[in-house]
Amino acid sequence: MDAITLIERKRDGGGLSAEEIGWLISRYTDGFVTDYQMAAMAMAIYFNGMTTGELTAWTEAMLHSGEVLDLSGVSGVKIDKHSTGGVGDKVSIPLVPMVAAAGVRVPMISGRGLGHTGGTLDKLESIPGFTTAFDPRRFAVQLEKIGLVFAGQSKSLVPADRKLYALRDASGTVESNSLIASSIMSKKLAEDLDGLVLDVKVGRGAFMHEITRARRLARTMVDLGAAHKVPVVALLTPMDQPLGREVGNASEIAESLQVLRGEGPDDLTEITLRIGTVMLLLGGITKDRTSARALLERVISDGRALEKFAEVIEAQGGHPRVVEQPELLPQPANRTHIPSPRSGIVSQCDALAIGLAALRLGAGRERKEDAIDPAVGITVLAKVGDVVEAGEPIAMISWNDADRLEAATRLLETAWEIGDETPRATPIVLEEIR
Amino acid sequence: MDAITLIERKRDGGGLSAEEIGWLISRYTDGFVTDYQMAAMAMAIYFNGMTTGELTAWTEAMLHSGEVLDLSGVSGVKIDKHSTGGVGDKVSIPLVPMVAAAGVRVPMISGRGLGHTGGTLDKLESIPGFTTAFDPRRFAVQLEKIGLVFAGQSKSLVPADRKLYALRDASGTVESNSLIASSIMSKKLAEDLDGLVLDVKVGRGAFMHEITRARRLARTMVDLGAAHKVPVVALLTPMDQPLGREVGNASEIAESLQVLRGEGPDDLTEITLRIGTVMLLLGGITKDRTSARALLERVISDGRALEKFAEVIEAQGGHPRVVEQPELLPQPANRTHIPSPRSGIVSQCDALAIGLAALRLGAGRERKEDAIDPAVGITVLAKVGDVVEAGEPIAMISWNDADRLEAATRLLETAWEIGDETPRATPIVLEEIR
Repeated sequence: MDAITLIERKRDGGGLSAEEIGWLISRYTDGFVTDYQMAAMAMAIYFNGMTTGELTAWTEAMLHSGEVLDLSGVSGVKIDKHSTGGVGDKVSIPLVPMVAAAGVRVPMISGRGLGHTGGTLDKLESIPGFTTAFDPRRFAVQLEKIGLVFAGQSKSLVPADRKLYALRDASGTVESNSLIASSIMSKKLAEDLDGLVLDVKVGRGAFMHEITRARRLARTMVDLGAAHKVPVVALLTPMDQPLGREVGNASEIAESLQVLRGEGPDDLTEITLRIGTVMLLLGGITKDRTSARALLERVISDGRALEKFAEVIEAQGGHPRVVEQPELLPQPANRTHIPSPRSGIVSQCDALAIGLAALRLGAGRERKEDAIDPAVGITVLAKVGDVVEAGEPIAMISWNDADRLEAATRLLETAWEIGDETPRATPIVLEEIR
Repeated sequence: MDAITLIERKRDGGGLSAEEIGWLISRYTDGFVTDYQMAAMAMAIYFNGMTTGELTAWTEAMLHSGEVLDLSGVSGVKIDKHSTGGVGDKVSIPLVPMVAAAGVRVPMISGRGLGHTGGTLDKLESIPGFTTAFDPRRFAVQLEKIGLVFAGQSKSLVPADRKLYALRDASGTVESNSLIASSIMSKKLAEDLDGLVLDVKVGRGAFMHEITRARRLARTMVDLGAAHKVPVVALLTPMDQPLGREVGNASEIAESLQVLRGEGPDDLTEITLRIGTVMLLLGGITKDRTSARALLERVISDGRALEKFAEVIEAQGGHPRVVEQPELLPQPANRTHIPSPRSGIVSQCDALAIGLAALRLGAGRERKEDAIDPAVGITVLAKVGDVVEAGEPIAMISWNDADRLEAATRLLETAWEIGDETPRATPIVLEEIR
């Protein structure tokens, strides 16, 4: 076999066999197939796509490019959740303790933030002492003992994706439905799951701007799960304005604590409950949605969800008292308010502009090697549909560096649109694909 | 500027400015833009093509990626010829001395053979002592003094093409009309020409199998010449069977000498005269085709063309007595005949199979670093339309290695088809595009 023949075949619209795809991924992982060959292949796939058979083989080959977790020794059902990323999307943080308290085991392996969307790991690491380094033995032990783990990606799991993702990022071949789907699914399937819920975000602040593309990606991933015998449910959810009020790192942990105490913002609480409900159903914990939701509301009201979060913080080296005293989280040196330029009703609160402003402040990374500042961020004080008076604060900026404040402020100036009419309400979940 | 943005734009069907293309080629040449980025860009160009403006800018950027020859000090008109490559295509070797003897200056820079088609340089280097190393000062002096130079590609001319060609070859992105056209034209335009004739070959033994693709490539290159103010004429010529009778290196020199003595095979002689005629017209040497052709026939019959070949051999370190004594060329240890399996009329004599057989014998290179054996090759004794008896030799193999003989023989067994009807004659030139 040789890479050039396979590239030319894909380029010319021909098919690749499972054996050929297996060879390609394995020899790319070991370096025999070069980066430039894989970049050409990725671009050919961008244009010609992959058949269902090719995509299944590609995902399997990625999955088996390294170790695969074996969680057969862990009792109970293992369900995970993945989001394609959004601004203020801290859903995993209250969700995982909540569903774990309700009896689902969650072996969550997450990524770090890059660009205008934040990463779950970065947010968690703003908790003093919290570590997310992956250790396969400790992973299974913690999962068995307390029912949840928040880990970072490991070099040993799906090394092909690690390499291919970096290559796609640097070669303009990220936006391929097939390559996105196989990247996400190979990593999630390596977690030895019994079920998976995907939160596919659509809108200005998301990776996918159009629902048709989001729907196609969701369908592809659900089918990939089925081919691998793992039930997958995808929710398409809007990402035009930030989720909740906080966009940052420490501030998103504080807001997650509010959700776990039953005091979170409505949109964030509702999407967390909706995803949690599907996870409970996938895990067979309850018979129907009503009882699943009731169970989740119960673990919030009786404090078990919050307690579960304290447990995982302690298990991963963090300071569990943060749960009662969020002021122990990193705090910014300064806070500045952005006033509303006029009176009216908020018609737009642009997730992308706010995400980019948070990035400029230092809450995110422009490049992989950048350090983040956990204390800075933006608090959204006026969301779509809110009535505001001229001069009333619509946002608060938490900042540590005046230059960064200026750059962020410029971006925020155009983020809000204030009109005279009440905008149409957006549903929390646009579609459910299974 | 950054490469990823440009790749994504081209991928999504957008346009690149001349400045952006200039930046990309220049930063690729110096290594800032990586091979994998350029491979992704090449694949995006394969799918989305380039506009005329982009292609002109791309070619100019390639051309100016290194030194450009300055032949303004050389008197007379400088016309070159380029072939897209075929089997037995030694046309340049008799052509250049012929048109030089008729008053055109030919600053020819050629490539080496790779795969089933041979290279002019390899053939010339089978002349004992002949060297083709490029030296810009000697190049101009020799061109002024004797009117012709056969040189190899220089590292200093069009370095971007050197790098990009190797990358395309290894990444499955060779077959792009835009990239082929700019690769050929940037190298030819770097020769500071007054005119160029392109021999675009079409058929089983050529790079282009369909006339529509060949026509498109020819049109693109003619237009690129016009944009650069260099008149270019392209001839589309058939390449279904080998040109002439010899496929090898030393044997193709010997056959070229026959052409220069007016004793060459009809097809080879005719195509050489047809291309030479266009070169003379482009150079303004004669007023019309009839007088151009008459002049070329004259320089053959009076020996000036052959003498010019002896001059260039001497100027480039070779043994000029080869011209009178072709037996001084490397000779094979063995010769074996292939008998016709039946009586009838040859309906096919497959250039590709014969080219591949010559390659297996050692007349060509499978990889760039391979050495070639100048003495081996195939003599085609029966061409399309020839009447043969069963058992009569249809080919002679000149060989030095029994294993290679066997591999070549196997390929040759299927190269001829012998039927009962006289096949339609193919014209020497299919179309002329200007």
